[in-house]
Amino acid sequence: MSEFDRFLEANEAFISGFTEGDLPLPPSRHVAVVACMDARLHPTSALGIALGESHIIRNAGGRITDDTIRSLVISQQLLETREIVVLHHTDCGMLSFTNDELVSIVNKELHQDVHNHDFLPFSNLEQSVIDDVNQLAKSPLILPGTPISGAIYDVKTGHVSEILRK
Amino acid sequence: MSEFDRFLEANEAFISGFTEGDLPLPPSRHVAVVACMDARLHPTSALGIALGESHIIRNAGGRITDDTIRSLVISQQLLETREIVVLHHTDCGMLSFTNDELVSIVNKELHQDVHNHDFLPFSNLEQSVIDDVNQLAKSPLILPGTPISGAIYDVKTGHVSEILRK
Repeated sequence: MSEFDRFLEANEAFISGFTEGDLPLPPSRHVAVVACMDARLHPTSALGIALGESHIIRNAGGRITDDTIRSLVISQQLLETREIVVLHHTDCGMLSFTNDELVSIVNKELHQDVHNHDFLPFSNLEQSVIDDVNQLAKSPLILPGTPISGAIYDVKTGHVSEILRK
Repeated sequence: MSEFDRFLEANEAFISGFTEGDLPLPPSRHVAVVACMDARLHPTSALGIALGESHIIRNAGGRITDDTIRSLVISQQLLETREIVVLHHTDCGMLSFTNDELVSIVNKELHQDVHNHDFLPFSNLEQSVIDDVNQLAKSPLILPGTPISGAIYDVKTGHVSEILRK
């Protein structure tokens, strides 16, 4: 049985209790969260986000990339969000490799040359949050004056620690 | 009170019931989900995903971009995922604008010229899922033979409908 089949089966149980079919498209709390894709982090649970309340953008590391900015422009300019929270976490996979190492793995496993790719690993977790918040704060495509916060989720305790606010 | 403050407050309640501090880094179900950032979609709830089970990548539309591929390479090559599910949804914001319209809005609101940006809107929801699954299937950076499925979540009913499998 594929995981997709298991998802479809689990969805049958989900819809039997579904009562939130009339929510508006713009997030009701006017906030967008940028978080890591990590399996041990469910931003909705950890931050108390109910259905309809917040955009949630996720990628490897919770990094700010061209695609994150694309999503945030749509979020702010079309869907009325006015605050951004960046959420990285302890024991992140991005702390465990360098670009050179991943280039070498991709070359061996997929026979592809990706030496010109930046996979955006980092060696200092707190600094990665600071860097990403600062990158958002200086982006000309983010609404001036947007409150932007950065935090770290501890996968061992579930605790979210504030790192900085802009 | 900022939304970030409300998140920190909600996190206090979350950690009081937290018992999952010993999960391994690789997702236990070896699957990665690519989904839209929409506030009305919580992939973990809709698909029955528990903490530790699945990578979840999200952006505007749940589209396949260079950054999605970056995340999936890390997911597959370093963290052992072997299946991908693409999840778009009804009433998506990506159905509501064209690149020209958003370029015009960004020019007016932010005084920035983004005519060379593709914000990846779509006019046909089902086709957007097919396109993104096909793009993954033909990517040289995705492991050959990876099962890739595409589905649509109905924001009115919570129901997930299969569109295609590769």
